[in-house]
Amino acid sequence: MAELRGGIDLGGTKIQAAVIDADGKVVGEAREPTPTKGEPGDVAKAMAKALREAAEGADVETSELIGVGVGSPGDADEKTGVVSSARNLPGWEGSFPLGEKLSEALGTEVKVGNDVQVATEAEFHLGAGKEFQSLIGVFWGTGVGGGLVLDGKPWLGRGAAGEIGHMVVKRGGHKCPCGRRGCMEAYAGRKAMEEEAHRRHDDGEKTDLFKLMEKHEKPRLTSGIWERALDHEDKLAEDLIERAIEALGTGIASAVNLLDVEAVILGGGLGIRFGERLMGPLMEEMCKHLFVDERPPAVRVASLGDLGGAIGASLLVSR
Amino acid sequence: MAELRGGIDLGGTKIQAAVIDADGKVVGEAREPTPTKGEPGDVAKAMAKALREAAEGADVETSELIGVGVGSPGDADEKTGVVSSARNLPGWEGSFPLGEKLSEALGTEVKVGNDVQVATEAEFHLGAGKEFQSLIGVFWGTGVGGGLVLDGKPWLGRGAAGEIGHMVVKRGGHKCPCGRRGCMEAYAGRKAMEEEAHRRHDDGEKTDLFKLMEKHEKPRLTSGIWERALDHEDKLAEDLIERAIEALGTGIASAVNLLDVEAVILGGGLGIRFGERLMGPLMEEMCKHLFVDERPPAVRVASLGDLGGAIGASLLVSR
Repeated sequence: MAELRGGIDLGGTKIQAAVIDADGKVVGEAREPTPTKGEPGDVAKAMAKALREAAEGADVETSELIGVGVGSPGDADEKTGVVSSARNLPGWEGSFPLGEKLSEALGTEVKVGNDVQVATEAEFHLGAGKEFQSLIGVFWGTGVGGGLVLDGKPWLGRGAAGEIGHMVVKRGGHKCPCGRRGCMEAYAGRKAMEEEAHRRHDDGEKTDLFKLMEKHEKPRLTSGIWERALDHEDKLAEDLIERAIEALGTGIASAVNLLDVEAVILGGGLGIRFGERLMGPLMEEMCKHLFVDERPPAVRVASLGDLGGAIGASLLVSR
Repeated sequence: MAELRGGIDLGGTKIQAAVIDADGKVVGEAREPTPTKGEPGDVAKAMAKALREAAEGADVETSELIGVGVGSPGDADEKTGVVSSARNLPGWEGSFPLGEKLSEALGTEVKVGNDVQVATEAEFHLGAGKEFQSLIGVFWGTGVGGGLVLDGKPWLGRGAAGEIGHMVVKRGGHKCPCGRRGCMEAYAGRKAMEEEAHRRHDDGEKTDLFKLMEKHEKPRLTSGIWERALDHEDKLAEDLIERAIEALGTGIASAVNLLDVEAVILGGGLGIRFGERLMGPLMEEMCKHLFVDERPPAVRVASLGDLGGAIGASLLVSR
C-alpha cells in the first residue's frame, strides 16, 4: 500500500478532510460543518469525525496514515501543535492543544500549521504555482490572507508572516475589521465589503445585493451573491468590487516591490470566483504601482479549489 | 599577511573605498568625488583611483586583494557585473560592464551588487543587525532604499527585491520622484521632502529651511539642514519630518506584516541623523499598523555609518 497521509482544513463554517497519496492525489474526502457552539474540544471531535470518514473512503484506518496535517485559523504553533486565538471558532479565545488531542483520537502523528500558509504551499507544490520557485499566495475571502514561498521554502518569519491583508494601502483610510485603518482588507475583505454595502444602502444608495441575498436564502453576501449582482450590473456592487480590486492591486504591488517574487497565486472564495473575470483590472491596478513594471510577476488563479487547504495541510506531515 | 578584500560604495556624490581584513576591520580607506560629467568609464576610473588609495593606506597592491566588491546604484547584475540604468550617474542610462572594467584596472576579481542590499548585509554581519537572523534594512536618504536578509541569507528576489520606498502608503496620494503615486518615498525621501518644502514656501508658508541652506552654503536641503531647522522649531520642517515619519512607520509596518522579520535597521543620511532622536514617534507610527502588535520587531539605527556601504560591498567577494 502506498504511503497515505491525512489533511484537514479547519474553516469557520466547514471542516474539509482528505486522504492523499504520495503523488498528492486525493483518495478520500469528507466534509463536516464546523460546530458553532461549545468549546475547542467539540471542534476537535468534529475534525476527527471528518477525517475518519475520509479515511473510510480511502479504505484505510486513520492509525495507518503516516500522519495528519491541519491547516488552522488563529495562531497555530507548528512546533507544539497548540492553536491560540482562533476567534471565529467557538470558545477558542485562549489556547488549545489541537495537535495532541487529534493525535490521541486518530492514533497517528498530527502536525498543525496556518491555514493560509498551507494552502499556499499546496498551490506551490501541486497547483497553480508548480512552475515557480518564489510566490505569494493571496486568499481573497471573508478576510484577505497571505502565504509566502521563497526559494522553494515556506517563509513564516517569527510565525506570523504573510499578513498581506493588513498591509496598508491608504494611511488614514477606512477602518478594517482588525481595528486598524487603511489595511487592504478594509477595502477588499468580503466582511468589510458587506459592511460598506450596508452603510451605503442605509444611506439611500440603490442596490439589489440584499434582495439577492434574501432570494437565495443566504445569511450573508456570499461570493455567489456578489457575482449575481455584477451580472445584473448593480452599481453599488460594481463600485465596491472595483474598490476591492484597487486595494488588492495596490497591496500586491507593494508586496512585489518588496520581495520581487516570480508569481502571485490568487485564491479564496472571491479570488477563485472572480480571478479570471477580473484579472485584467487587477493586473492594471497592480502594474500602476510596480517599481519594475516591465516584468510583472505571473498572476494565476489557485487551481486546487476547495480541497487546496486540506491538501496543503497534508504536506505538513513530510515537512 | 591576512586575507584582504576591497569594497567600493558608488554613490551619487561620492565614491567611498575601503580595504577590509578577514574580521571585517577597515585597514585602509579613501574617498573620491563622483564625476558629474563624462561617461561610465570615467566613473570607473575614479573608483579605481579611490580603491588604489585605500590599498596604499593598507600597504598592499590592489592585485594582492582576494577580490573587490562594489555596491552600485541602478540595476546591478551580480552574475555579470553589468550595471544598467544608474540614472544619477553621468551618461549611465544604458548598460556598462563595470565589474569587468574594474577588474582589468585593479588586477583582481570584482563583484558587483546593489548598494542598499550590500549595506544591509554589512549591518547584518558586522553592525546593528548582528544578533538577528532576519531583518529589513531601510535606508532613508535622498530616496528610501531597502534590503532584506531572511534566515541569514540575502533575499534578492528576481534581482530587484527590497524596494520598500516604493511600497504604497497612500493610494492616490502624492506623486513620487519615481513617477508613481503614494509611495513611501513620496513622503519620506529627502528629494521629495525638499520639493514639497519648495512648493509650500512658494505658497507663502514661513520657513527658515532655505535661509539655513544658503547660510551653510549647501546646494540642497541636507540632513544637517533639516536637523538645524528642527532645532529652531521651524514649523514647516517639523510638519514635513512628521509626515516622513508617518510614511516610514506605515511602510515598515506593512513590510513587517508581510515578512514578520526580527529586526529593522534604519540607515541612510536621514536615518543615521534622526534615528535616535525620532525613534519614539517612528515606533508609535509603526505599531499603529502592526498586525501582531504585542511583539514589534527590534528597530535599530545602522551602526557602521558612512563606511557601511563599502564594508558591505567587500562582503560580496566571499559570497
